[in-house]
Amino acid sequence: MAYEKPDRVVIALGGNALGSTPAEQMRRLRAAAPVLLRVIEQNNEIIITHGNGPQIGMIQTAFDDAHADDPTVPAMPLPECGAMSQGYIGYQLQQSIGAAMHKAYKRWHVATVVTQIEVDPDDPAFGHPTKPIGPFLTEAQMEAMRDAHPDMRFIEEAGRRWRRVVASPDPKKIVEYESILNLLDNEFIVIACGGGGIPVVRDYSDKGAYKGVDAVIDKDMGGELLAEDCRADLFVMLTAVDHVCLGFGMPEQRELTELSVADARRYLEEGQFGVGSMAPKVSAAIRFVESRPGRACIIGSLEKAAEAIAGLSGTRIHA
Amino acid sequence: MAYEKPDRVVIALGGNALGSTPAEQMRRLRAAAPVLLRVIEQNNEIIITHGNGPQIGMIQTAFDDAHADDPTVPAMPLPECGAMSQGYIGYQLQQSIGAAMHKAYKRWHVATVVTQIEVDPDDPAFGHPTKPIGPFLTEAQMEAMRDAHPDMRFIEEAGRRWRRVVASPDPKKIVEYESILNLLDNEFIVIACGGGGIPVVRDYSDKGAYKGVDAVIDKDMGGELLAEDCRADLFVMLTAVDHVCLGFGMPEQRELTELSVADARRYLEEGQFGVGSMAPKVSAAIRFVESRPGRACIIGSLEKAAEAIAGLSGTRIHA
Repeated sequence: MAYEKPDRVVIALGGNALGSTPAEQMRRLRAAAPVLLRVIEQNNEIIITHGNGPQIGMIQTAFDDAHADDPTVPAMPLPECGAMSQGYIGYQLQQSIGAAMHKAYKRWHVATVVTQIEVDPDDPAFGHPTKPIGPFLTEAQMEAMRDAHPDMRFIEEAGRRWRRVVASPDPKKIVEYESILNLLDNEFIVIACGGGGIPVVRDYSDKGAYKGVDAVIDKDMGGELLAEDCRADLFVMLTAVDHVCLGFGMPEQRELTELSVADARRYLEEGQFGVGSMAPKVSAAIRFVESRPGRACIIGSLEKAAEAIAGLSGTRIHA
Repeated sequence: MAYEKPDRVVIALGGNALGSTPAEQMRRLRAAAPVLLRVIEQNNEIIITHGNGPQIGMIQTAFDDAHADDPTVPAMPLPECGAMSQGYIGYQLQQSIGAAMHKAYKRWHVATVVTQIEVDPDDPAFGHPTKPIGPFLTEAQMEAMRDAHPDMRFIEEAGRRWRRVVASPDPKKIVEYESILNLLDNEFIVIACGGGGIPVVRDYSDKGAYKGVDAVIDKDMGGELLAEDCRADLFVMLTAVDHVCLGFGMPEQRELTELSVADARRYLEEGQFGVGSMAPKVSAAIRFVESRPGRACIIGSLEKAAEAIAGLSGTRIHA
């Protein structure tokens, strides 16, 4: 049999799928790691990215709570919280994949690259922050935070509960792109762009050097850029459901196994997909599939990742 | 002039030199970055490692405080706190070095590798924890922590203040060694083994897979192992003082510019060096110099790093 060049696959793991405590996250990653190895055994090179919504919220809450009680603990800016979440999740992923490899007698290498992603300071998203982060707040808690940080924005959710919202700008450039590609080209399993990457902007008051910015890049959009930059053939977004659905949660719910870009765009316009959940995944899928002929995208569940890539589960989005 | 092969230099930055807030740390790293670039311009390849004593303490305190008030914030194990500190400091180092390169029109690349280091579960250090972490505690606070975590150990310091202590085992193997070497061999500036690395042990109840362990590896010993593994020519430990001194802080204080391994060992035995500060640096220096003929070590200040490597400041430890 002729040597077949491996496909390069970017796999995005949802932050919500990782649980809410370090022990729970480790258990789930340990369970997921053998699935990721099966993807490699199907003759694929894999690059892993992951969400960090619950984790970055947890880290910022920990620092906010501790700072309020004890001023020797500093408040922690959002980009630094994101960097911490990359170290935290990356470490547990490395250890989980390492354990699965050890048990399967595999000698691959796995590395986490701390990743900044450049965004445009003039991105219109900065004028309309939409991404909720951190815990739910009472009106009194919200007002206290707003008084302490007049630049923070909040939205009211059902039941008079409030949450802080930050901008979700479009990712433009992976700052550590060369590091990621170098490791990939040397056959490492790379973990990168965690939480959509740490958002940075060029600071023209400082000769154009990068500085962190209070924002959260959508992890599926960050993963899409990673997939483009790594010249991936396939971009796989793993979430809690096996398929993209029409009429999700309704009696007429229909699971999709195939979805063309044209249909995907039409369903998006009809509002078929959840704004904070499936809609950004489908948008990222459209962007990736249209970025170069022959590229495809799969949305499926973490448990059935290997089946999804083999075409036996999930929703395949194609041109 | 003939091409001269660059020297490979591992530079260890002290965690105490980084300040105690994210803004202060960023300011200090931004000030240090041009110094690090000057070392590269002297025809050296550099690998950077850093301490994390104050930072890991800050992260664990934040989670402990928040968890005590709000059980939805989980307690955070020490290895995960270490992983967070690697992301946090690595991100700021990348950004600081990136800014200095940008202003100097340099196009080098800089990457942080999240690093685990294997230690021996039978290391005698686990029977005698000595490394203070986290904040100073009153006797009542200490007793409350000890009741909640019976396995935690504490020491009393002057003035009836207490601190938690953990083991400081000897680093045995850098788990992500291949990732670090690969980036180095491709001329990246690599940041690795932050805080002495995240300590892990083989778990023989889990087929020998790695798991995190509550310990802190001395960052100078972790840096020494990094320097050996990277086949470095020179290991530079940067701290708050310009030289290793005899009779430090006393009227007869004498700054050393040169120190042989034989003298270093004798002074260590005489107790000339501070137990938690200069003694581990001198021990790491002896280990590196003796690891292979021709290797040297420098202990000096961050501000005068380039001068120290050029032989104009610092203390040079040699065979």
